[in-house]
Amino acid sequence: MVDIAVESAVPAHLRTVRGRPLRVPEDYVPQFPSFVARHPESVSQLVMAYLGGAATPDLDGADGPRHHDRAVGHGETVTTAYWDDPTAFERWAAAHRAAWLATPGHWLEVAAPGVERYETIFGRRSRPEGAAVLAEGFSGAIREHGYWGGMRDRMAAAQTDPLHRPGDLAAEQEGDVVRVRPQGSLCLIRSGQDWTDTTGDERRMYLEEIEPRLREGMEFLRTEGRAVGCLANRYLTVLDADGAPSERSYGWSWWRSLADLERWAESHPTHLEIFGAFGRMAAAQRGRIDLRLYHEVVVVEPHEAWFGYRDCAPGTGLLP
Amino acid sequence: MVDIAVESAVPAHLRTVRGRPLRVPEDYVPQFPSFVARHPESVSQLVMAYLGGAATPDLDGADGPRHHDRAVGHGETVTTAYWDDPTAFERWAAAHRAAWLATPGHWLEVAAPGVERYETIFGRRSRPEGAAVLAEGFSGAIREHGYWGGMRDRMAAAQTDPLHRPGDLAAEQEGDVVRVRPQGSLCLIRSGQDWTDTTGDERRMYLEEIEPRLREGMEFLRTEGRAVGCLANRYLTVLDADGAPSERSYGWSWWRSLADLERWAESHPTHLEIFGAFGRMAAAQRGRIDLRLYHEVVVVEPHEAWFGYRDCAPGTGLLP
Repeated sequence: MVDIAVESAVPAHLRTVRGRPLRVPEDYVPQFPSFVARHPESVSQLVMAYLGGAATPDLDGADGPRHHDRAVGHGETVTTAYWDDPTAFERWAAAHRAAWLATPGHWLEVAAPGVERYETIFGRRSRPEGAAVLAEGFSGAIREHGYWGGMRDRMAAAQTDPLHRPGDLAAEQEGDVVRVRPQGSLCLIRSGQDWTDTTGDERRMYLEEIEPRLREGMEFLRTEGRAVGCLANRYLTVLDADGAPSERSYGWSWWRSLADLERWAESHPTHLEIFGAFGRMAAAQRGRIDLRLYHEVVVVEPHEAWFGYRDCAPGTGLLP
Repeated sequence: MVDIAVESAVPAHLRTVRGRPLRVPEDYVPQFPSFVARHPESVSQLVMAYLGGAATPDLDGADGPRHHDRAVGHGETVTTAYWDDPTAFERWAAAHRAAWLATPGHWLEVAAPGVERYETIFGRRSRPEGAAVLAEGFSGAIREHGYWGGMRDRMAAAQTDPLHRPGDLAAEQEGDVVRVRPQGSLCLIRSGQDWTDTTGDERRMYLEEIEPRLREGMEFLRTEGRAVGCLANRYLTVLDADGAPSERSYGWSWWRSLADLERWAESHPTHLEIFGAFGRMAAAQRGRIDLRLYHEVVVVEPHEAWFGYRDCAPGTGLLP
């Protein structure tokens, strides 16, 4: 085993007496380092807004997001915008939401979790993606990874909360927009890969062995996911500043609960194939990996999520 | 999901208020049924004695084991004997242990856990193996399986105990026998397969795809296991009543802790290959599986384990 000094993924100001223990013993040391995003203590809530539609939403101005990116997949164009000031988001939404949803085919999905129900993981301490772009920086090597259950163990709320309050989805027409209102909490994951830096065997293994399995797993979740608790899944390619496809992609899915996401990741053949293909590549490369992986996971209560769809095809996002 | 009524793997008389929650939420339902052995409430301790040596130990008489089997592998012959009356075992050991260890090359390894640190799992409610032969019968379908962590969740002690008190091994000469004394608790698993009933594609897949990966995993644990907390591993073929190899085998290993066994099972490429090969076969067979799988796992405190080796090669069992 590699002996590395580790710190807790849970930031110091959110630590409490654990009513629910970590899944690993005190002396657990991960086999390789991973890192989490560290946000300022003053940040208590994050906002992640996903805007579906080929148009470019108005994201400039004082209340605009601190970071956004655009991505395409399955005929959809999605702009993802991040705020760490929920009141700024509220002002932005008041000014721009109705206009965005005035266009047929547009939709908006928002997750605005308290930071205690948010966690990230990155393989490198550079080139943050997603909400981590808003962070102050990265942690040192953290303890809570390299085992099934690390995702939950990294989330501050899980120190005391089972994070399991699933409920039905209620859809209702509100003017021209169909609103979907979750009756329980939901879990959201954005899980990304960046193969820009890969070369040689590693690049070939990513493109020929890992990516096809990743695509199969994403397709399973998109078409059959509801049976395992996945309410919606999109597999998207990030666009660069010129609007051209980059060598970065991400899977993005809504789940009935964190537990359902855990079960799929740990046991479903489609995910184990992805996991196994990555493990074989890491072994073949003797750990010298240029592929960059990261994810962000949140659990939102009903009042922290917002879903609206304007004349969208059935099955878009959380639409029935 | 298949909707099946489930019961707790933890027997009613050993249930208590969980200080350590199950790894799955209240509404978790496994995708397929599995069962555990149910012993009489009067049984508070089990004894599993492994006797290494080609001779047949004296197991008859009033204090003999209630069940035993014999197996071979890597040039070793091992008789495994089970008691559910520890005082009968003590009398048997007083009468026979010294004689067994009088023969060079013989060894004896004993685990005698309280039943609260013992768990089993079986895919079928028939043909018990190992300690389950001593049981009154099988449970109904249980809840705590089909996810990583089920092993721990099935063990009664884990309701309140992290089951993690690893320690060093101390070896010392005692007459002609080398005794190994664990300074902390140990974990033991016997994990078996019976392919007697398999036919056609399933048999071919077991023999050509699963078994070679199982053999590789067992060989990894035997030769490199210490780095992941596996102190000893044997992969054995069970002998039938006539002493001929049967179509049943088991892996049997001592671990530094239950947590180390969990980490290997959940994350090591050698075990994920085994797990993946089995999953592919189950999918190909659409769940109609004639391969029988079972395991028994115990955690023993230092005073519940006994190891003695008479002129055995270095590295035999827990020998340095």
